[in-house]
Amino acid sequence: MQKVRVYMACSFDGYIAGADDDIAWLHEDHAAPGALPEDPEALGFEEFMSQVGAMLMGRTTYEVVEGFGQWPYGETPVIVATHRELEPMAPTVRAAAGDIGDLVAQAKEAAGERDVYLDGGALIQQALAAGLVDEMTLTLVPVILGEGTRLFDGIIPRQALVFGPSRAFSGGMMQVTATVRRDT
Amino acid sequence: MQKVRVYMACSFDGYIAGADDDIAWLHEDHAAPGALPEDPEALGFEEFMSQVGAMLMGRTTYEVVEGFGQWPYGETPVIVATHRELEPMAPTVRAAAGDIGDLVAQAKEAAGERDVYLDGGALIQQALAAGLVDEMTLTLVPVILGEGTRLFDGIIPRQALVFGPSRAFSGGMMQVTATVRRDT
Repeated sequence: MQKVRVYMACSFDGYIAGADDDIAWLHEDHAAPGALPEDPEALGFEEFMSQVGAMLMGRTTYEVVEGFGQWPYGETPVIVATHRELEPMAPTVRAAAGDIGDLVAQAKEAAGERDVYLDGGALIQQALAAGLVDEMTLTLVPVILGEGTRLFDGIIPRQALVFGPSRAFSGGMMQVTATVRRDT
Repeated sequence: MQKVRVYMACSFDGYIAGADDDIAWLHEDHAAPGALPEDPEALGFEEFMSQVGAMLMGRTTYEVVEGFGQWPYGETPVIVATHRELEPMAPTVRAAAGDIGDLVAQAKEAAGERDVYLDGGALIQQALAAGLVDEMTLTLVPVILGEGTRLFDGIIPRQALVFGPSRAFSGGMMQVTATVRRDT
């Protein structure tokens, strides 16, 4: 069954960005002394992307990706939620405006039989509030940031979850997947 | 080496209490359909307490414990951080006022060679801000509460961590231990 999925890194205290939108901490070496540095492939992002048929991305996140200089999402269709004009970085990118329900519906259609990858703090927040998220994979970074932008912010309705198996990585990160229960 | 430790349950979105101080969700059945209910012993609280020489507890938490009717901490000395008068529930309980550094020092002394168990959201926050927490065991409850009292709140300095092994439980909870790195 097609799912709307989140795949996000956050600090132990729940921040997706530090003060002043700092994301440099994400890419630092978090390995404990004597441990091997992180193997990015082990984090399973490529496997995750192989199940994704389309992305729905917030404007702020898109602008961060623009800063990379190179488009990282290959042929995957990407819908950018924005009310402003957009100069697409790749032929697979298009802008869309609307409420979160419309946007998710568009992304589901673009994804065909595969899953939707929802990216961007504000958009995830809106989708959670609307009960539209099916699964969240969080890569916990072993740091307390102490301030910044939270993954969970604003009031959202209570939702029961099931945790999948968690995984620890050589570089110090931990990953946990939570699926939203639809049986409660 | 003596440690200052936190052992706390929180929701997936980082709340230790829901709206209006609701903690009923902690004791609900979180097991997925077909799974066994939680075995409270499996969560390792007794093992944890066997390593604890003294507790430092916030006033609000103490009042919650008062509501239990029965004193749950046996012979363990308990220091309650409060500026107000306190009618101790047990001969092992005493009130103390002071800054977080003083309070933690008193609890360490009371703990002898063993660890200090720090309990209560506000107190944990102060101790984190002062860099006085050595280890945090979080029992993640498989629910998004969406609002309430956060475990991590207010600005605290950045701290690097090491994750210990995580454990999943039959009743749906997950436990992760993070140790504060003192080598960075």
